[in-house]
Amino acid sequence: MKAESKQSSDNRYQKGLKTITAVNPNAEDDIRQMLKDICPDMGKFIIEFAFGDIYSRPGLDLKMRELITISSLVTLGHPKTQLTRHVKNALNVGCTKEEIVETILQMAIYAGFPAALNGLSIAKEVFEE
Amino acid sequence: MKAESKQSSDNRYQKGLKTITAVNPNAEDDIRQMLKDICPDMGKFIIEFAFGDIYSRPGLDLKMRELITISSLVTLGHPKTQLTRHVKNALNVGCTKEEIVETILQMAIYAGFPAALNGLSIAKEVFEE
Amino acid sequence: MKAESKQSSDNRYQKGLKTITAVNPNAEDDIRQMLKDICPDMGKFIIEFAFGDIYSRPGLDLKMRELITISSLVTLGHPKTQLTRHVKNALNVGCTKEEIVETILQMAIYAGFPAALNGLSIAKEVFEE
Amino acid sequence: MKAESKQSSDNRYQKGLKTITAVNPNAEDDIRQMLKDICPDMGKFIIEFAFGDIYSRPGLDLKMRELITISSLVTLGHPKTQLTRHVKNALNVGCTKEEIVETILQMAIYAGFPAALNGLSIAKEVFEE
Amino acid sequence: MKAESKQSSDNRYQKGLKTITAVNPNAEDDIRQMLKDICPDMGKFIIEFAFGDIYSRPGLDLKMRELITISSLVTLGHPKTQLTRHVKNALNVGCTKEEIVETILQMAIYAGFPAALNGLSIAKEVFEE
Amino acid sequence: MKAESKQSSDNRYQKGLKTITAVNPNAEDDIRQMLKDICPDMGKFIIEFAFGDIYSRPGLDLKMRELITISSLVTLGHPKTQLTRHVKNALNVGCTKEEIVETILQMAIYAGFPAALNGLSIAKEVFEE
Repeated sequence: MKAESKQSSDNRYQKGLKTITAVNPNAEDDIRQMLKDICPDMGKFIIEFAFGDIYSRPGLDLKMRELITISSLVTLGHPKTQLTRHVKNALNVGCTKEEIVETILQMAIYAGFPAALNGLSIAKEVFEE
Repeated sequence: MKAESKQSSDNRYQKGLKTITAVNPNAEDDIRQMLKDICPDMGKFIIEFAFGDIYSRPGLDLKMRELITISSLVTLGHPKTQLTRHVKNALNVGCTKEEIVETILQMAIYAGFPAALNGLSIAKEVFEE
Repeated sequence: MKAESKQSSDNRYQKGLKTITAVNPNAEDDIRQMLKDICPDMGKFIIEFAFGDIYSRPGLDLKMRELITISSLVTLGHPKTQLTRHVKNALNVGCTKEEIVETILQMAIYAGFPAALNGLSIAKEVFEE
Repeated sequence: MKAESKQSSDNRYQKGLKTITAVNPNAEDDIRQMLKDICPDMGKFIIEFAFGDIYSRPGLDLKMRELITISSLVTLGHPKTQLTRHVKNALNVGCTKEEIVETILQMAIYAGFPAALNGLSIAKEVFEE
Repeated sequence: MKAESKQSSDNRYQKGLKTITAVNPNAEDDIRQMLKDICPDMGKFIIEFAFGDIYSRPGLDLKMRELITISSLVTLGHPKTQLTRHVKNALNVGCTKEEIVETILQMAIYAGFPAALNGLSIAKEVFEE
Repeated sequence: MKAESKQSSDNRYQKGLKTITAVNPNAEDDIRQMLKDICPDMGKFIIEFAFGDIYSRPGLDLKMRELITISSLVTLGHPKTQLTRHVKNALNVGCTKEEIVETILQMAIYAGFPAALNGLSIAKEVFEE
C-alpha cells in the first residue's frame, strides 16, 4: 500500500481545498470559524480526507457525489446542518432542484417517510433563500 | 392533489413491473417467491409504490437511482440482502464497478468506516460471482 | 399479484383520505400546505400509500396503528415533528395518555433511555396544549 | 420519588420472572444459559428492569407490549435474534399472525421497505416452525 | 440469579442518587422537574437502574463511564439534550476538555463526520458557558 | 490550517502502521487481504486517517480509544465484524475483560438492551477463543 502513499500532505490539503471550494466557495472560512475554538484539526481532516482523499477522486463527478451525500444524510436523519449545506453544494455544482427533490423523495422507500419529509422540508428552505 | 391521481392501479403495477424488470429481470418471480407465504401485498407495494410511483419518475435515471439507493443502504448498515440486490441492479442498469465502489467508499465520511467496509465486502462478493 | 391490484388510484386516495382524516381532521390541508412548493406528489403518496394502502387495512385498529407508529418514531429518535403529530393522532383515535406514555416508556429498553426521555418530553408538550 | 421505591428487589425479580415466563416459558433458563459465562447481572437486569419494572406495568396488556416491541426491533433493523424471540413471544401471549404481519408491514412507512422486508422474513421463519 | 438480587430497592435508589449526584449535583431536582408531569417513574428508573445498577458498578470509573456515554450519544446523533448533559457530567468528574474532544473526534471514524461535527459543536457550547 | 499540514503522507502511513500494529499485529496483512480486490485505497485510508491521524493523537491512550470504539460499535449495532476485531484489539492493548464487559453493558442504557446483549455475545465468543 505504501507505493500509493507518496503524495505529501500539503498536496492533499491543496487538492481538498480546490474541491471543497468548488462545492462551497466559503468552505475554508466557514470551517475555520466553526472549529477554531474547539478542534481545528477536524477542519484539516474535512479538507484533507473528506475532500482531498475522497471527493477529489475520479469515478464519480461532484454532482453525483453531492446526491449520494444527500441520500446518506437524509437516511441518517439527524444531521440537519449538514443536509442544508449539501443541498446548497448540490445546487452549486449544477444539480437541478428536480434531481435533489427526486433523491430525497426516493429515500421514503429506504429510510422511511419521516426522513424523506424532513429532508424535503430542508430542501424547501434552501430553495427559498 | 386528486387531479394527479387519475392513473389506475393496474397502470401503476405495469409501470412498476417494467421498471423493476429493467433493474432485475427476475424481480417479479423473486418477490412472489419471497413473500407469497407471509405477505403477498408487500410484493404489490414494492412493485406499485417503490418501482411504479418512485423509480419510474423522470428527473433521475435508473443508474443514479441505484447509486443513491446503495448510498442509503450502506448508511443503514443492516440491510445486507437488499444491498447485495441493489449492487446487482446497479450493474444491470449500466453502472460501472468503479461508480459502485466510489459510492460505497464515500460513505466512510457520512456513515463511518465500518458501514463502508461492510458495503465494500458485499460489493466484492457480487463482483466475484 | 395482479389480481389484487384492481382498485383504482382514485379509490386509494379516497380510502386514504378517509383514514387520515380520522386520525387528523386537518391532514389534507396540512399536507398540501407543507408540500405544495417542494413536492406535491409526496402528499399524494402519504395519503394513497401510507394511509390508503397501509393504515386502512384490517387486522389492526387505528389505536394500535398509532401506538406502533409512536414506538417506531421514538426508536428512530430524529423525527420530532412526526412524533408530535402521531401523539396527537393517537389521542384523536381514542388512545389514553397512559397508553401513549407506556408505549414511549417501554422504548427505554429497546431504543435507549435518551430516545424514551425525548419522546416523553414531546408527549408532555402535546398533552399540555 | 423515594416513596415509590419501597418494593424490594426480590419482588422485582419475582414480578419480572412471572411476566417474562408468560411471554416465554423458558426465558429464565435461556437467559441464564446465554449470559452465565459473560455477564450474569445482565440477565438479572432483563428480568428485574425490562420485565419487572416495565412489562409488568398496567396501562398496556402484554399483546400490545409485544407488538410495540416488534415495531421497535424492526425499526432498529439489526437485532434479528431479539426480533425472532419477540415474534414467538407475541404468538405466546395471543397475538394473531395477522397482527404481527400488519405491525411489521406498517414499518415500511417509518423504517423503510428493507427493514419491513427483513422483519417479514423473520416472522415467516417463526411461523413455519 | 436470585442470589444476586438481595439488595432492596431503597438501597438501589440511594446508591444511584449518590452516583448521579457525583456526576451532576442537581440531577435529582432536574429529573423530578422534567418528569413530574409526564412520567415520574422514569425518573426512578434513571436513578435506580441507570445510575444505581450500572454507573455504580466497579470495573470502570466515572470518567471512563462518561466518555463511553459521550461516544454512544454522538453515535446516535439525535439526543442533543443528553449529550450536552453528559459533556457537563464528564467535566464534573474530572475529564479534561481534551479527553472529551478526542472522544468526539474519534467518532468521525465510526459514526461519520456529521455526527462528530455536531458533537464538537455541542461540546463547544458547554465549554463556553 | 495549512501550517499544521506539513507532515508528509509517508509519515502518516508509518505513524498509522505503528499504531494499528500495536492494537492488532496482523492488521496490515489483514487489511490488504480484505481490500486488495475491491478497494486498496480504503486500506490506505484506514491506516493513514483512522490510525495515523486519529488513534495516534495524544489525549487518550489506546485502551481508552478501544473502549470508546466498542461503545460506538455496540450503539450502531450492525458492524459485528468490526466489534469482534475491536474486542480483540482492546485485549491486545491491555483492557481487562471486565472493562470490556462493563463498557458493553452500559450501552443497555443508551443503545438499548438488544444492542448490549448482542455486544456481550460477541465479546463472549472472543473471550472463548
